[in-house]
Amino acid sequence: MRRGTNLPWVGDYNQAVVLDGVRRHPGTSRTDLAAATGLTLQTVSNIVRRLIERGLVQEGEPLLRPGARAGGKPRTALAVRPGAALAVGLQFEREHVDAVLLDLTGDVLAVDREPLPDPPDATGGATGGAAEAAVARATAVVRRLVRTRGSADAVLGVGVAVPGPLDFAGPVRSSAINLPGWRGVAVADMLTASTGLPVLVENDATAAAVGDLWRSRRVGRSFLYVHVGAGIGGGVVVRDEVLRGESGNAGEIGHVVVEPAGPPCSCGAVGCLEAVAAPAAVVRRYAERVGREAARAAGLRLAERSVLDDHDRLGVRAAAGDEVAAAELRTAALAVARVVLGVVNVVDVSEVVLGGAGLRHAGERVRDAVRAGLGLAMTREVHPVEVRFSDAGEQAGALGAASAVLHEALSSTWVGVHVPAREIVISPVAPVH
Amino acid sequence: MRRGTNLPWVGDYNQAVVLDGVRRHPGTSRTDLAAATGLTLQTVSNIVRRLIERGLVQEGEPLLRPGARAGGKPRTALAVRPGAALAVGLQFEREHVDAVLLDLTGDVLAVDREPLPDPPDATGGATGGAAEAAVARATAVVRRLVRTRGSADAVLGVGVAVPGPLDFAGPVRSSAINLPGWRGVAVADMLTASTGLPVLVENDATAAAVGDLWRSRRVGRSFLYVHVGAGIGGGVVVRDEVLRGESGNAGEIGHVVVEPAGPPCSCGAVGCLEAVAAPAAVVRRYAERVGREAARAAGLRLAERSVLDDHDRLGVRAAAGDEVAAAELRTAALAVARVVLGVVNVVDVSEVVLGGAGLRHAGERVRDAVRAGLGLAMTREVHPVEVRFSDAGEQAGALGAASAVLHEALSSTWVGVHVPAREIVISPVAPVH
Repeated sequence: MRRGTNLPWVGDYNQAVVLDGVRRHPGTSRTDLAAATGLTLQTVSNIVRRLIERGLVQEGEPLLRPGARAGGKPRTALAVRPGAALAVGLQFEREHVDAVLLDLTGDVLAVDREPLPDPPDATGGATGGAAEAAVARATAVVRRLVRTRGSADAVLGVGVAVPGPLDFAGPVRSSAINLPGWRGVAVADMLTASTGLPVLVENDATAAAVGDLWRSRRVGRSFLYVHVGAGIGGGVVVRDEVLRGESGNAGEIGHVVVEPAGPPCSCGAVGCLEAVAAPAAVVRRYAERVGREAARAAGLRLAERSVLDDHDRLGVRAAAGDEVAAAELRTAALAVARVVLGVVNVVDVSEVVLGGAGLRHAGERVRDAVRAGLGLAMTREVHPVEVRFSDAGEQAGALGAASAVLHEALSSTWVGVHVPAREIVISPVAPVH
Repeated sequence: MRRGTNLPWVGDYNQAVVLDGVRRHPGTSRTDLAAATGLTLQTVSNIVRRLIERGLVQEGEPLLRPGARAGGKPRTALAVRPGAALAVGLQFEREHVDAVLLDLTGDVLAVDREPLPDPPDATGGATGGAAEAAVARATAVVRRLVRTRGSADAVLGVGVAVPGPLDFAGPVRSSAINLPGWRGVAVADMLTASTGLPVLVENDATAAAVGDLWRSRRVGRSFLYVHVGAGIGGGVVVRDEVLRGESGNAGEIGHVVVEPAGPPCSCGAVGCLEAVAAPAAVVRRYAERVGREAARAAGLRLAERSVLDDHDRLGVRAAAGDEVAAAELRTAALAVARVVLGVVNVVDVSEVVLGGAGLRHAGERVRDAVRAGLGLAMTREVHPVEVRFSDAGEQAGALGAASAVLHEALSSTWVGVHVPAREIVISPVAPVH
């Protein structure tokens, strides 16, 4: 059975609605909020008073609107207090961990990047020596970021973006198939113990989608976030709700079969998008076609850790007239476009947001292919599907993970209702020293 | 901005929770409901009293539990009053319209089927003569069904399942690409005018998914409903919420590309699942391989309206040793399995429900292929993905559309919140005479 509630739900829900309105529209007024939310002015005023008391919202100068009645009471501009709440975001990649510190307005206060050591044993194990080393490095970065603020007092928690699959049953475990040595890693527990901060874990592309949602001023958005990094992942948002699925693993567009006779994929299937269109696949096909020697002569290093650089190099070469590079990048772009079309038909969104390091030099090709493909979307006569690049850069996952912490903490009521099973925030313990 | 609410939300939400509990668990008691919902016994009792006053719930015999304390107050069994609310469901197919009449418990009171005339002009037009003829026939069926109950008083409305795409902006329009002559058909307006009842429109496979959800006693389900009929469609439910997408067109798994070098699809793309694996594709390939004469000799009629019968015939022949028939059905089953794997990876569900007339003789083959494919699901180490047949038979869409009416009417608060944009119920006008 569904669980009901004895809590004063409306109050909390409306409080989240008002706080969200102030955050998205700095300079708004109580009157504007009442008009936009459908709440009475009295209700809005009461909520704003409580938010000011809690230090989450601050008043600015009285607003004098052009055409305002002389003698009418001026409206007071409202804004969130940026330092009232901070969040750290981490993003684990094969070669490094990215970190950001966000304030309540979503402004980036600091960014950091820490290289990760080569995995001691690429086959990994349940205890994951590689993951432990990565978490130790990440902890150091979190401490550095928090130290820039003097103390961890305002830090609500650490959001962690990792590639899937995740297991939210029991301690949150990551078995990221694209991170060597990550099998059943209890990443939330490990980071909570090492940083002393609450930790929230999110699939990396879903985190990026949450970030895009959190930064946006529009509401009612439905979009697919496509992340092309070492792997290919996706995040789905439908009418402002993040689609997490049964176990927080929704969005794995990299494992939609796109070439039934294609190469085997790390997931065990054959011809998945990731196996056809991820940077490693493009680099491998190029080297196969021209030969490893010619590929090296073309500037490729052909090492596991240099895949993204090699992929960039192919982008540069394609632009300079290397037809093999262009053909392989085109194959990848068309595969992405084909899968995006299928996924958009399944989830029915009106925006596709593209991000990730795999688009540094191949982005426009992918964007154009996706746009062309979406001309055949089932909903083409119902609503257009826009395609654009993420504005989050390569820290999209880290930014998104930090946004997820703010989102979870500040709009907990309605998020809690919509995603009741995702209780993955671990209680705070002693702050970092 | 999100819209807040000044309504006494909690009361309505809890009322929906309690009614849902009584409906799913006939014979439950106030004490059981309190335990299962987390509401206080007092709150449950108040809500039950209101539900009894409204005639939605009725009390049965006092329950004497084994081991109940002697002298303890006996618990009273509760159940919904079946006749308190009825709903009609319609499902438009190429050759006929199916109709059902459901009571509040979900029991089927009556079923009916009306053949549809051949479309006068297969290319159709904005006014859709074919659709008008179909709606006229459907109206006759609705009247027949309602007449079996004497009056339309308890009928909450008519749910209509149609193939996509739908347009919910303005009057609900259907442009079902699998129904000749259906382009921009304002099916809700037409049926409201002709029947005098409120009308709700749903994509056919999504309707079937809603029906599966409504009949289920379990909660917290996440599943993909796969409909193989003349076309192939899908419905997605994540943690009991129906995924409708931006415009109510989510779930179009038939338009995921599965054979990039495959046949052109009616949607304009190439190699979509529907173009490879729908009954018409299987029949066409069989006829191409053995020749039309041999296909006719094998019992196929090879007419547009006989596709499902011909497909059944191939299923029978495959079982009897026709290797070409078996091979073509296998090709289709593998294509379905491949797309289901990809879609399950994208939406992360733990159940796949298979239904539709295209599975009458090919069902086990498809089920086994889907099961085998899902052995490679990204979440295979996190949770299993079960595969089973729908228990709704070929009226799944009609049953689901009727269930959607009940769902919408009786749990309107939380449905209204979760799917705020789907305000497609048209106000009732005069009842049918």
